[in-house]
Amino acid sequence: MRIVIVGGVAGGMSCAARARRLSEDAEIIVLERGQYVSFANCGLPYYVGGEIAQADDLLVQTPARLRAALNLDVRPGHAVTHLDPHRRRVQVASAAGVSELEYDALVLAPGARAVTPAIDGLDSPRLRTLRTIDDAQHLREQVEAGARRAVVLGAGFIGVEAAEALALRGLEVHLVEAAAHVLPPLERELAHLVAEEIARLGITAHVGRTATAIDQQPNEDVVHLDDGSALRADLVVLAVGVRPDTAAFADSGLALADGAIVVDEHGRTNLPAVWAVGDATAVSDPSTGLVRPTPLAGPANRAGRQVADHILRPETARALPAPLGTAVVRVGQLTAATTGANRAALQRVGREFTTLHLHPNQHAGYFPGATQLHLVVHIAPDGQLLGAQAVGRDGVEKRIDVLATALRYGGGVADLIDLDLCYAPPYGQAKDAVNLIGMVGANVLDGTLRLWHAADLAEVQATCLILDVRCPDEIATGALPAALQIPHTELRARLDEVTQAANGRPVRVMCASGVRSALAHRVLTQHGFDSASLSGGMLTLRAWLGAQAGQVLQ
Amino acid sequence: MRIVIVGGVAGGMSCAARARRLSEDAEIIVLERGQYVSFANCGLPYYVGGEIAQADDLLVQTPARLRAALNLDVRPGHAVTHLDPHRRRVQVASAAGVSELEYDALVLAPGARAVTPAIDGLDSPRLRTLRTIDDAQHLREQVEAGARRAVVLGAGFIGVEAAEALALRGLEVHLVEAAAHVLPPLERELAHLVAEEIARLGITAHVGRTATAIDQQPNEDVVHLDDGSALRADLVVLAVGVRPDTAAFADSGLALADGAIVVDEHGRTNLPAVWAVGDATAVSDPSTGLVRPTPLAGPANRAGRQVADHILRPETARALPAPLGTAVVRVGQLTAATTGANRAALQRVGREFTTLHLHPNQHAGYFPGATQLHLVVHIAPDGQLLGAQAVGRDGVEKRIDVLATALRYGGGVADLIDLDLCYAPPYGQAKDAVNLIGMVGANVLDGTLRLWHAADLAEVQATCLILDVRCPDEIATGALPAALQIPHTELRARLDEVTQAANGRPVRVMCASGVRSALAHRVLTQHGFDSASLSGGMLTLRAWLGAQAGQVLQ
Repeated sequence: MRIVIVGGVAGGMSCAARARRLSEDAEIIVLERGQYVSFANCGLPYYVGGEIAQADDLLVQTPARLRAALNLDVRPGHAVTHLDPHRRRVQVASAAGVSELEYDALVLAPGARAVTPAIDGLDSPRLRTLRTIDDAQHLREQVEAGARRAVVLGAGFIGVEAAEALALRGLEVHLVEAAAHVLPPLERELAHLVAEEIARLGITAHVGRTATAIDQQPNEDVVHLDDGSALRADLVVLAVGVRPDTAAFADSGLALADGAIVVDEHGRTNLPAVWAVGDATAVSDPSTGLVRPTPLAGPANRAGRQVADHILRPETARALPAPLGTAVVRVGQLTAATTGANRAALQRVGREFTTLHLHPNQHAGYFPGATQLHLVVHIAPDGQLLGAQAVGRDGVEKRIDVLATALRYGGGVADLIDLDLCYAPPYGQAKDAVNLIGMVGANVLDGTLRLWHAADLAEVQATCLILDVRCPDEIATGALPAALQIPHTELRARLDEVTQAANGRPVRVMCASGVRSALAHRVLTQHGFDSASLSGGMLTLRAWLGAQAGQVLQ
Repeated sequence: MRIVIVGGVAGGMSCAARARRLSEDAEIIVLERGQYVSFANCGLPYYVGGEIAQADDLLVQTPARLRAALNLDVRPGHAVTHLDPHRRRVQVASAAGVSELEYDALVLAPGARAVTPAIDGLDSPRLRTLRTIDDAQHLREQVEAGARRAVVLGAGFIGVEAAEALALRGLEVHLVEAAAHVLPPLERELAHLVAEEIARLGITAHVGRTATAIDQQPNEDVVHLDDGSALRADLVVLAVGVRPDTAAFADSGLALADGAIVVDEHGRTNLPAVWAVGDATAVSDPSTGLVRPTPLAGPANRAGRQVADHILRPETARALPAPLGTAVVRVGQLTAATTGANRAALQRVGREFTTLHLHPNQHAGYFPGATQLHLVVHIAPDGQLLGAQAVGRDGVEKRIDVLATALRYGGGVADLIDLDLCYAPPYGQAKDAVNLIGMVGANVLDGTLRLWHAADLAEVQATCLILDVRCPDEIATGALPAALQIPHTELRARLDEVTQAANGRPVRVMCASGVRSALAHRVLTQHGFDSASLSGGMLTLRAWLGAQAGQVLQ
């Protein structure tokens, strides 16, 4: 049996290796368009930034090593240019010319290519994507040759990593993002924290802006933005997103959705004996039903393995669940991570949901090094977990991994109460941040807690009494005008003041993080007030308001 | 309604706080035998070691603050000495004398007390447990007054934390453990790694030894062990375990199992209107069915909350699942963590299981700071996860938290393949350590991989050919005598040598960590050999052999 695999990086190479482990007899040929196979593409920004010293460190495997260890026939510099599913052949272009290769099973793992916006000057030799070892080497050479100014187009995960890497090397970096905030997949109230860290790294972010042209001058490029600014650049990094790289298969009858190869739960395409894995594929998102690619290394690697199983022993092969899109990025001293659906995706499909905001410490407050986690969790009306995000200095990815695990098992938010997680003072709290999400969520579901949100601020200000239960020294750092101020410890004795100030209006309580306002809400609601507690408190409100906080708070 | 809570630390105080949040009207009285309520008992060793500077940092709450915030009636220095369930009264002893207190609902959260072995000299003023703020202050005072030598009796979690704290302060520390290795709940092949770290910290461990007497001399104590050694000590820490502190309720009709209060899934005891939570309670372990206490802060805190729910709104209260016993400890630069059942518990109940050993990196190998995780996972014949443990320098508690979450949801090992966990080079690998457990486990379940274990060594040496597929430079660091040595990359070309050396015997393969031997196993088994791969490779074998490694390896 001959298995031909198109693409030799993450998913393709995992498939090849697994196929060999299952079958000593199969002929396994890997065709890779680029020079390198199985290279560490997620490591490229760190090579540019110098944290990874040698480009060789990024080469996880070589064709010679793969031949020796796994008897694989790996062919770099071989591009597949056409697929004929009826004759079960692919057309292959290489330095040796164009030839045909027959297959019994074909696995398409062509990956993605960078999106190129339609603007003048994109052909500048100073512009690069950050997709290949060659890209990374070029950028690093430019940095080491004395480049002083960089413009990074796109503030997604790669763009932010690239911007940080260049800033670390001492360049003046401008980061341009068309969306309203950096890291568009993150919720705005978390992205704001990342934006502050980006500013602290000395990077200038231009959000809600797009490049309109790149003016190639003799000694530098000038990147023009749609707000009229002109950014001088010795190098430009293009990172505005990726698209499935499927043009070679367009005329083959392969079913595509918005350019991505549609696969089933076994990685099968619509064509017989053709499977596909990785960045070029699309499946239905479990929380929203949206069919979309998930261009991430983890799902690609796992899919490669599962597809080899389905090719070589279909009767026992397990199904591939749709990826949740769990992702993480380091930005300066912060970590930002996400799993499942975000607010935008849930709104796009009209799914009803409630959002919880928490700011617990990552470990016991009395142990040195305690820092806050900033958590956002979306839950369905029945409590089902839909998505979660976190930003903080420590312990972020642990909580998102636990939540991603709970999401995978289809858990409800209240189940999080019962998770037995590691606790000792250096590692967590007796009620871990994830347990606390469960407790808050369960309270919301059963009506013990009623929330209001930063997004409701204008309406609340117009129709309700806002009760701020923080202490005077906290209030001095910024408060909403016209809020009644009663520290939560005095509330029971001062309920008459609330009655008087509310004058029949609902009471909307707030504190710093949402803990004390929840306590106050319980007091108020048991005394007959129409009350609710601000989700995430002033911490979330400030981050939600972002640049407008100065106008809204006094 | 009057709710009386006996014990004001973890579970008792959680119960009191939750009860108030649910009911403004309830009278809530907390009786605490000690001076302090809601103190951070898990922080005590770090206060002794000086990482936590002030004893005040350990006082999470005070009666005055609890009165102000939650209108709780908290009474330190009040010991409950008798329970009369028929008259619904407890007898309370305090500085003011003995009185009776009536209750509508009673919550017993008396906690545990230190086990005291029956040896002479245990009344030494130089001996302390490490259970209270007073204990910790006394130890720290002794250290600061110039104590030079310490003996810690018991190398469980608290004993190890205490020994490290004292070693950090410059004392000469001897650590005495009756079990065969330090941290008895850990498997021996992981405990050995912790033992090496304990030695690196300058602590002398005496395992398989017990103290027989403490000889109180004018200027020091001398601790005599059962091997005849005599250890000089300026202070002695007693940490050989804890027992439920339930003597006051012995004549009340309360159902106890081995001294622990037996509770149901709502925290109810056998007595009407009496609940119990925390270290004094026992429930059935989900993996083994053994009824046992789980003296840990996390389960206690969560149980306190749930019991308040059951008292105040029983119709909607959720059930309390049995704790998994997830625990973590920092030892020097290592973290050790465990969840679910260990080998000893599974063997005790005769449960069939297989053990997986893995040593993956915690993050991408090419990113600076990559270190190995040492993982042990027990699975049932049907793949159900039964327990997991890990030791390493980084990322340990994250993996155990993810595994604890999977255990809670009743997952099978193969499900771990599908977990979408955070991946970027500083945080993980595209196939995270937990995904790899799933892949190895699935291979074992479906027969793709067959394992042999370090425990089988003698039998394997007697009856099989051992094939070592490491490289010559690795073999030079230690190998099993009489093993056939063929690097895994040469195996396909040298199968004749295997046939010849095996001479009809089964072939048992090994490498450094179990990855290459699994590849070799796949080659051999497809060529008709009776083959198996050493679980965890030489890394696990060495740790399993421990002190005997020098004799067994050449």
